Amino acid sequence: MFLRKSPSQTRLADDQADQELQLSLTQLAENYPNAAMKQVLAIAAEKKSVIVLSADVETADQLLELIEKVGKTICVLKLHVDTIKNFNQNTLTRVLDLAKELNFVIMHDSKFSDIGSTVMKQYLNANYETAKWAPLVTAQAISGPGVLTGLLAGAKAAGKENMNGAILLAQMSSEGALTDDIYAAKAIDMAEKNMAIVAALVTQTIHSKYLLSFTPGVGGLAQAAKGDGLGQKYRTARDVISGGSHFLIIGRGIMLAENPAKEAEAYRNEAWSVLREEQHVAALKTRIELFKPKQVAAPH
Amino acid sequence: MFLRKSPSQTRLADDQADQELQLSLTQLAENYPNAAMKQVLAIAAEKKSVIVLSADVETADQLLELIEKVGKTICVLKLHVDTIKNFNQNTLTRVLDLAKELNFVIMHDSKFSDIGSTVMKQYLNANYETAKWAPLVTAQAISGPGVLTGLLAGAKAAGKENMNGAILLAQMSSEGALTDDIYAAKAIDMAEKNMAIVAALVTQTIHSKYLLSFTPGVGGLAQAAKGDGLGQKYRTARDVISGGSHFLIIGRGIMLAENPAKEAEAYRNEAWSVLREEQHVAALKTRIELFKPKQVAAPH
Repeated sequence: MFLRKSPSQTRLADDQADQELQLSLTQLAENYPNAAMKQVLAIAAEKKSVIVLSADVETADQLLELIEKVGKTICVLKLHVDTIKNFNQNTLTRVLDLAKELNFVIMHDSKFSDIGSTVMKQYLNANYETAKWAPLVTAQAISGPGVLTGLLAGAKAAGKENMNGAILLAQMSSEGALTDDIYAAKAIDMAEKNMAIVAALVTQTIHSKYLLSFTPGVGGLAQAAKGDGLGQKYRTARDVISGGSHFLIIGRGIMLAENPAKEAEAYRNEAWSVLREEQHVAALKTRIELFKPKQVAAPH
Repeated sequence: MFLRKSPSQTRLADDQADQELQLSLTQLAENYPNAAMKQVLAIAAEKKSVIVLSADVETADQLLELIEKVGKTICVLKLHVDTIKNFNQNTLTRVLDLAKELNFVIMHDSKFSDIGSTVMKQYLNANYETAKWAPLVTAQAISGPGVLTGLLAGAKAAGKENMNGAILLAQMSSEGALTDDIYAAKAIDMAEKNMAIVAALVTQTIHSKYLLSFTPGVGGLAQAAKGDGLGQKYRTARDVISGGSHFLIIGRGIMLAENPAKEAEAYRNEAWSVLREEQHVAALKTRIELFKPKQVAAPH
């Protein structure tokens, strides 16, 4: 026989767990080395959301409409402006206004994968001068650490040193991806050695002791079973967080829902209720300690 | 003691070797499965050039000036329009005119590395609708075969099925690149299984039995010794062709020369004189046989 908690007892326990997680995220924000991720963590605490919307829309109108519906529920908006028809400077201005108004951080999903000198130029020139407006950008590890040297040089050139961050992809969720465990370990090592620019990782199952993880390929249970026919596989929110990740990148799971706002909230609540479980909060606390400045022993 | 050939004997031997290589390239063009690469091979034979110019310039004016100087000497122009300041539709029109006038094929160095559905959209929308004007685009293998499915779908959607081709990166030349031998073998396997869209490979030392190879990181001897300070390493033309590659991607080696036109010609002549050596022509001939339609046995 189990002793059932009364509804009010359950609510009280949930509130305490919420506050505990919010406090941990806030303290991690204070101690985390990258400025853009500090902001993401503070927003996550405030909005009780670790949801990243992957805005894989077709047109600029669809993008703005989607953000207006879902923006208040997410901590990060991930987009590729180069996939969107009719995207222009006005669209960008509106997206940046919405980011302030609805309080989320922008991650441009550039997936930079060229050599350093080229990546630096792409960061400064491509997609409306990405370095100037996107606090976070994604990068592949395949070309070696030069991609990070290039992004760091680009951030400096754009006046965004110690502000912008790179999200390095260590593992991908697509069918037949070549990001095996050895690759992932090398990518994570590369990231940890370049924390002047690396803000976090994209991972599936292998994580860093230091850097936080974003995980794509999160869908509902129906999607998880089915895939998308172009090689994309899906996992559930519980799978991903229990596997050690922190931020859930969700695209079609929200976009294709009948009510995207409601669906985003459902994902937010589901992810949050997993993340506030004791073992996950404890793991965040361990990470806070890692980043705390070491106290100098008092002289005798 | 060696018997020296007279200058006229040498010239005669060189002319014969030239014709032999030109014939092999022409026959390979006739039998090679990808239409864009057929054109590259035909141009290579005609211009006696396997030189790909990597136009890593800063501005649109520099791009056009460089092409005007070097275009007649190359078989392929590789560029990233997203790295170039002031690049606009007029620049693109001019580049396409120059490609016709000076007879070279364009490779957009997109290094697509996202999942299939995103890559398809980037191919159709990004960089002035790349699929419409760039017969060749580069792609990373890291995300798995979905990147190729996405490009094939994009080529179809752009009305360029059986015309456009993808150049899959199997190895990279940058310092600390994660394209180890196992990765390269997997990428080559992926390419060979997707020859409806894959036109050729980017490799260093490991090649395909079927698909031709492009190799970047080619510089003069001084560059080969020095690198660029952002993680790029260099090899010589002889190294690369003797290692089994076919097309040499050269950027700064030409661009930064006092006389880029003359330097491009020097690279062209050097590469050509290596490629026309007996063993390399024999290797091309083996490849022609692989692609020749199998003769059906006559009925008894």
